[in-house]
Amino acid sequence: MLSYTESYQLVEAYLKNLSYNREPLQLYDPIRYILSIGGKRIRPCLALMAHSVFSEKRDEVMESAMGIEVFHNFTLLHDDIMDNAPVRRNYPTVHAKWNANVAILSGDAMLILAYQLVARSRNEVLPRMLDLFNRTALEVCEGQQYDMNFETRNDVAVQEYLEMIRLKTAVLLAASLACGAVAGGAAQSDVDALYQFGLNMGMAFQLQDDYLDAFADLKKFGKTIGGDIVANKKTYLMLSALEKADSRQKKELHQWLKKETFDADEKITAVKQIYQELGIGESTQQLSEAYMQKALLHLKSVSVPRSMTVELHRVVDMLLRREH
Amino acid sequence: MLSYTESYQLVEAYLKNLSYNREPLQLYDPIRYILSIGGKRIRPCLALMAHSVFSEKRDEVMESAMGIEVFHNFTLLHDDIMDNAPVRRNYPTVHAKWNANVAILSGDAMLILAYQLVARSRNEVLPRMLDLFNRTALEVCEGQQYDMNFETRNDVAVQEYLEMIRLKTAVLLAASLACGAVAGGAAQSDVDALYQFGLNMGMAFQLQDDYLDAFADLKKFGKTIGGDIVANKKTYLMLSALEKADSRQKKELHQWLKKETFDADEKITAVKQIYQELGIGESTQQLSEAYMQKALLHLKSVSVPRSMTVELHRVVDMLLRREH
Repeated sequence: MLSYTESYQLVEAYLKNLSYNREPLQLYDPIRYILSIGGKRIRPCLALMAHSVFSEKRDEVMESAMGIEVFHNFTLLHDDIMDNAPVRRNYPTVHAKWNANVAILSGDAMLILAYQLVARSRNEVLPRMLDLFNRTALEVCEGQQYDMNFETRNDVAVQEYLEMIRLKTAVLLAASLACGAVAGGAAQSDVDALYQFGLNMGMAFQLQDDYLDAFADLKKFGKTIGGDIVANKKTYLMLSALEKADSRQKKELHQWLKKETFDADEKITAVKQIYQELGIGESTQQLSEAYMQKALLHLKSVSVPRSMTVELHRVVDMLLRREH
Repeated sequence: MLSYTESYQLVEAYLKNLSYNREPLQLYDPIRYILSIGGKRIRPCLALMAHSVFSEKRDEVMESAMGIEVFHNFTLLHDDIMDNAPVRRNYPTVHAKWNANVAILSGDAMLILAYQLVARSRNEVLPRMLDLFNRTALEVCEGQQYDMNFETRNDVAVQEYLEMIRLKTAVLLAASLACGAVAGGAAQSDVDALYQFGLNMGMAFQLQDDYLDAFADLKKFGKTIGGDIVANKKTYLMLSALEKADSRQKKELHQWLKKETFDADEKITAVKQIYQELGIGESTQQLSEAYMQKALLHLKSVSVPRSMTVELHRVVDMLLRREH
């Protein structure tokens, strides 16, 4: 089966061909731009890798895999408008570089281009593929809506947060794997197993991401530690801290959440102190680990020899940044 | 075959069922809202009517016809953000009633819901249907982009304008008819003929719309006459006037286009005076009529008895507001 590195090279090569060098330039330039500024291409890679477990005919999967990548970049483009984010992957976002109208319309066109790619699936699998893609795309929108709702709510429960990240993040990773399996003609039970593998991996990954924001080694992780704390983001850490806190801790957390002017380092230190008192770091890692174990059980249940799925095991390790 | 009135009732009944009464409400409420505030439902009606020429199995076409209506309303929702329009069909627009982020995300979800409906086409016609829908949806985006580009350009040629309205307006009417024909299992030559019928009807309709803004009887038309003139919209009237004008007329038109403060009635009277000197009203009506005649020739070429297409003839009359 394909490794992640091999898949990545195939994806990048395909993207170079998929140039969208068309008129009107104002519509297609931003699409080329956002597709060119990279990322790990994890979703199309997962689709290619899952497909390679069942079939060697790579052109069965290439276009729908790229459709998922184009869809993912469409969501980034529109999310960045909604979040008013100036930078993405160290480059100016589309609405910052052009303007919001350009970002809205180019995003719309990308969603259509994503469907155009997915629609090139073989006729035998087309209805199943569209069903998977439609359902997933709608769930991702629902996840983004819940995420936006949470910003103005003060009573978000941990369970609601988990449902939000399932919709916003995990289902698209799940669908990428399922897409590859469907394209490769896998049995429905294997499609479902890979979907569940991706779903649980996505949950583990997002929880790990929340954990690393507060606890990662800055040099290794390359991201400002505590950014979520400074921005009052309702992460798993914050929400479970609020649920577990005693009255003194709860009061202190709410004070920090309400403060409009503060020293960032002081806030990070104080909030992390409470996280430590409550064992939030450990419980987050435990939950992430539990999702990962569940993911691996689903991967095991795929009806192929273990050697066929070893590269997917490796992706889990890579995504969760664990050492071998 | 179905009449427009019969189709309209079927469409409204289906829309009542298609309630999208789901969570999160913030995502689906605006979708229900925009779908409920009506309009002529001309696109799904054309699809149903075209289908009825070839088949009596209405469930073959119902969902893709509604997909086109949902798509059309998605474009209105996003266009209204981009145009900063406060009102649509006498109701507040979604971004005015909620906010821009709600309008962006609900619009995205509508585009996906449109695909979900179109994807329910029979397997035998699904690839053709998707191909038609994808191509058309992308063209509509391109049309909107050209329209936005024109706002900041002073050198738009009449030919460019005609290409813009083809993309922004005509192709979706064309695709509605083609969708019905495809769903009904029509031969490709009949699909193409109905597409061309719709395309030319759409051009005629948009030119008529431009004409009526300046020349309609206010009471009959129910719209402020001269709104396009006041707003400096680059309509067929204005662009062909600029192309035909002598130096005195050109200078006067440009003066009015540049003026930031003016009396609206005075501007309308002055611009219409030049339109009259140049015969712009007549030439616009002539071009609209020429497109309409071309549309009817294509309708005639459909390989069914004339009696089968009589209701589509009537729609042309209705849309172009001509008396029998």
